[in-house]
Amino acid sequence: MCAARPGKIYLIPLPIAANTQGEVIPAYVKTIIQGLDYFLAENIRTARRYLRTLGHPQPIAQLKFVCLDKHTQASQVVTYLQPIFQGIDGGILTESGCPGIADPGALAVQYAHQHHIEVIPLVGPSAILLALMAAGFNGQSFAFHGYLPVNKEERKQVIKKLENTAWRLKQTQIFIETPYRNQTLLEVLLSICQPHTLLCIGKNMTSKDGWVKTKPIQEWQRNKPNLYKLPAVFLLYGTV
Amino acid sequence: MCAARPGKIYLIPLPIAANTQGEVIPAYVKTIIQGLDYFLAENIRTARRYLRTLGHPQPIAQLKFVCLDKHTQASQVVTYLQPIFQGIDGGILTESGCPGIADPGALAVQYAHQHHIEVIPLVGPSAILLALMAAGFNGQSFAFHGYLPVNKEERKQVIKKLENTAWRLKQTQIFIETPYRNQTLLEVLLSICQPHTLLCIGKNMTSKDGWVKTKPIQEWQRNKPNLYKLPAVFLLYGTV
Repeated sequence: MCAARPGKIYLIPLPIAANTQGEVIPAYVKTIIQGLDYFLAENIRTARRYLRTLGHPQPIAQLKFVCLDKHTQASQVVTYLQPIFQGIDGGILTESGCPGIADPGALAVQYAHQHHIEVIPLVGPSAILLALMAAGFNGQSFAFHGYLPVNKEERKQVIKKLENTAWRLKQTQIFIETPYRNQTLLEVLLSICQPHTLLCIGKNMTSKDGWVKTKPIQEWQRNKPNLYKLPAVFLLYGTV
Repeated sequence: MCAARPGKIYLIPLPIAANTQGEVIPAYVKTIIQGLDYFLAENIRTARRYLRTLGHPQPIAQLKFVCLDKHTQASQVVTYLQPIFQGIDGGILTESGCPGIADPGALAVQYAHQHHIEVIPLVGPSAILLALMAAGFNGQSFAFHGYLPVNKEERKQVIKKLENTAWRLKQTQIFIETPYRNQTLLEVLLSICQPHTLLCIGKNMTSKDGWVKTKPIQEWQRNKPNLYKLPAVFLLYGTV
C-alpha cells in the first residue's frame, strides 16, 4: 500500500496570543502551510480559522482535517498517517504554540519516526522558551514539568521539591497551569516558597499587555499580579 | 542619573542555519530591530552582518555595539545598561538562536529585572525547541543539561545517569556539544547506552540538509550519521 516515497510531516506552530500570526509566525511557515491540504489538528475549528487568516489559497472547506487530541488512540493515529504513506505531505497543528511540546502531537510524531516518515519542525512561538529566555535564570540547565498535580497536598509537595532542586542543582524549574487555576497556583507559590527564591512569571506573552518579570517571592508577595484566566508560565530559581 | 522612564531590552533571535533569516525570523522581529541603535552582542561581527541583512535603516557603522560574551564581568554589564537607564531601548543578540538559553545574555537580563527594566523576548529559532518538537518524546517533562563534561570518565557517568533518568522518570533528556566534538559524543552514546533506549538527533536544523531523527540506539549503531563539525542537539528517552 506504500508509495515509493512517503510524504513529510510538518510541525506547524500557532500564535500564543490572539491575532498575532502576522507578527510572530515566520514567512516560510506561511509558504509551507499554503502548499498543504491535509492537517492533523488538536482543535479543527482553531486550525481552520488559522489557515484562513494565513491566506491558504484553497477554500478551507476543501482541505482535509482529522482531530489529534488527548482522546486520540494510537490505532487512530495509524489511520491518520495513511495519506502520508501514500505520498501526501501533512501538517500537525496544536491549539496554541508549538506542536509536540505539551500536546498530543507527539503520538503521531513517534509513529512517524518508527515508519521512517520525515518530520520537519517549523519555527514559531513557545511560551516556555520565551519565558526561559527572559527569566535571567540558568539557561544551561533547566527542567520543564508540565502541569502540576491538581490535588492540594500533592501540589505543595511538588512545589517544595522543585524549589529545593532549583537551589540545590541551580537548575531552572518550569511549569504551567490551566489559565483559570493560575491565580490559585500563584497564591500557593507565594505562601510556601522561601522569601529569597526567585519566581519568574511570563504572562500573556507576545500580546500587547504581556510581560515577563523575575522577582524574589517576598517582592511578589507585596505586589500580586492578576493572572486569572490568563495564559502564564512559572519558573523557579535559587541563587544568592 | 535615571530618566523618568528607562528603556526596554529586547531579546533578539538569530537564525541557527546560515542565511535563513528571511525564512525563520518573524516580521515583527525585523521591525523592532530596525528601530534600535544600541546592541549587546555575543559576537559583534555576526551582529553587524545580521543587522545589515535585515535591512537596518541606519549605516551599521553608526550603531552602537558592546560585547556581552562569556568573558563579560558583572561590573561591565552594569556599565552596558546605563544607556537603558537613560531611556534608550537596547537589543541583546546571541551568536546563534535565542539569547538567554545557553549563552551569556542571562547575566544582563538578571540585572535588568533587579532594576525593573522591561525585558521582552522575541520569537525565533531554538535548536533545542525544534528538536524537542520533532523527537516524539515526552514534551510534558523534559530537562536540558547544556554541554556534557569534556572529561571521558565524567561524561560516561553523566550519560549513564541521564539514560537512567529518561527511563525511570519518563523525562526527555536534552544536551548539546560543540560541533567538532559531536561525532565523538555520538560514538560514546552508541557504545554505552542500552540497545532499546531512544536517541533523537537534530542535525543542522532549518537548513536544507537538516533533519531530526529518532531511533533506538541499536538502529543508530547500524547506520551512523556524520555529525562532524555540524550543529546538533541530542535527546535521550526510554519507553517500551
